[in-house]
Amino acid sequence: MERTELNTLGEFGLIDRIKTKFNLQNTESVKGIGDDAAVIDIGNQYMLISTDMLLEGVHFDLSYAPLRHLGYKAVAVNVSDIAAMNGIAKSITVGIGLSNRISVEAVDEIYEGIKFACEDYKVDLIGGDTTSSRSGLVISITVTGVVDKDKVAYRSGAKVNDILCVTGDLGAAYFGLQILEREKQEYIANPSMQPDLEEKSYLVGKQLKPEARADIIHELAEVGVVPSAMIDISDGLASEILHLSTQSGVGALIFEDKLPIEDITMLTATEFNISPVTAALNGGEDYQLLFTVKQADFDKIKNISDITPIGYMTEDKAVELVLNSGAKASIQAQGWNHLQ
Amino acid sequence: MERTELNTLGEFGLIDRIKTKFNLQNTESVKGIGDDAAVIDIGNQYMLISTDMLLEGVHFDLSYAPLRHLGYKAVAVNVSDIAAMNGIAKSITVGIGLSNRISVEAVDEIYEGIKFACEDYKVDLIGGDTTSSRSGLVISITVTGVVDKDKVAYRSGAKVNDILCVTGDLGAAYFGLQILEREKQEYIANPSMQPDLEEKSYLVGKQLKPEARADIIHELAEVGVVPSAMIDISDGLASEILHLSTQSGVGALIFEDKLPIEDITMLTATEFNISPVTAALNGGEDYQLLFTVKQADFDKIKNISDITPIGYMTEDKAVELVLNSGAKASIQAQGWNHLQ
Repeated sequence: MERTELNTLGEFGLIDRIKTKFNLQNTESVKGIGDDAAVIDIGNQYMLISTDMLLEGVHFDLSYAPLRHLGYKAVAVNVSDIAAMNGIAKSITVGIGLSNRISVEAVDEIYEGIKFACEDYKVDLIGGDTTSSRSGLVISITVTGVVDKDKVAYRSGAKVNDILCVTGDLGAAYFGLQILEREKQEYIANPSMQPDLEEKSYLVGKQLKPEARADIIHELAEVGVVPSAMIDISDGLASEILHLSTQSGVGALIFEDKLPIEDITMLTATEFNISPVTAALNGGEDYQLLFTVKQADFDKIKNISDITPIGYMTEDKAVELVLNSGAKASIQAQGWNHLQ
Repeated sequence: MERTELNTLGEFGLIDRIKTKFNLQNTESVKGIGDDAAVIDIGNQYMLISTDMLLEGVHFDLSYAPLRHLGYKAVAVNVSDIAAMNGIAKSITVGIGLSNRISVEAVDEIYEGIKFACEDYKVDLIGGDTTSSRSGLVISITVTGVVDKDKVAYRSGAKVNDILCVTGDLGAAYFGLQILEREKQEYIANPSMQPDLEEKSYLVGKQLKPEARADIIHELAEVGVVPSAMIDISDGLASEILHLSTQSGVGALIFEDKLPIEDITMLTATEFNISPVTAALNGGEDYQLLFTVKQADFDKIKNISDITPIGYMTEDKAVELVLNSGAKASIQAQGWNHLQ
């Protein structure tokens, strides 16, 4: 039998392959694979549903990820997917696979983190599955949420001249990971070393305990703005802009000098000899929201702190970055086109 | 720090521990942890949601589980949880963790099985998560379904004198697993051996490709009967009767000579020197439905093929089996009180 290696497809290739095999047959199924969450018609509203799986050794390393933060993060990344549809998360189910290395106290820590996140995001834990695992720790969370039918934001709704905005700042989680990996290597070389992460706590915090921008969804609702398109930044700004552009059938132009990057991220980028723009574009795990609004709506949101306009959508299908030098660079979804 | 091993709690102990930490805060959350599926109020109906995770080396062995059957089974066991609430399954999300041992063709096989199940149960695949896995294959499915508010069947609704019924037959999946394990050992000892499973295909089929009894839910609806309580048999009849009894606050009396056990199961039980009643009580993975109906409703369902009355609920809290000898045995949830 023929054998094709998975890495020849990549994650998005695999998702496309799966998507072509399945058609929606139930009238309640409004939107299937291909957005941040699936959309189900429940009568007066849409229900949103999304799932994210975290595997030990792939998504986290127990040698530096505190279990409480891990539980929190597992919920936050799911809530982020609901926010990316302009929805409000309501409930989660938690599937957990536990190896015998994990004690009852360790499980308690994970669920404490889950509980903190449930309280922060006003989400109920309504069910799950607990099982033993022969390999590492597995946390699979499915989140449900709701959105008014006229307020759902798909990836595909961006129009030419819409303003492209991003929440928060970018690249910090990526450098948080680099720092944790470096400290781990130093600890392996010298176990008596005490890591001093205080100076970098902002970056490390963004990696270990990211927040979903549910707050922004409430702020947009308050000023009466529905994004024309939206996605959350899990794989990196570059990849997400390409998703918005491709699915909306428009191009995008963004500006280097508009990208929100914190001073500590800039500083650490120099230390690691990595371009901060590359980290912002391809680092991933920021869990910020990337969205477009009609120009007419921009005035209503421009005073919301933590929203930065970074460019606009174009008729030309190209997705380009205007560098500070004035030159233009084509944006590629480099860096994360593997199974992650 | 104190360290308590997980096996001192067991799966149900762990679930209880988690349950006590979490309260439901949203008005939409009708029923959380503790039944076959969670219940969310969506206006005119209830939405049901349940999740089941299958891990390589714990729930399946790729040396004998065909990938197509595995995909099918992963969906069926989830649909079974919706049926156990008297609901109709509507959609699934599939989280999948793939090690680099798995080829694209192997992934295709898994999704073909998932697709067959989606067609059989009229369920839409609406989303998921694909990721690499450092360890084995992980399949985590979350299913949603719907049920009319006045038709939902909880575990807790059984009343004294209600008749306890079971669908299909019991113990076959357990012996299917024993046969597969035996063949595997024989194959390891002598790789040129060709296994002849034809005679046992019924048992092996029940293990590798169980069906959810969604058909029974439609038949109950046709005759206008709502079970007073219901659960699906995943861990074994004994464990499930104890759940119904405990949560309903009643006892149960069942009769050995009423237990539906196929001839081939009986025959194979002799071969393995295991009591067929033990297999029916504790074997697990039958994915049949166990439910109670009011005596007044029994006449309406007695002509539905594949439903067998096996006893009734009692005022006395004891859960007992009346043996063919006339003696009574107390039913314990033995056999599966570990993380599974």
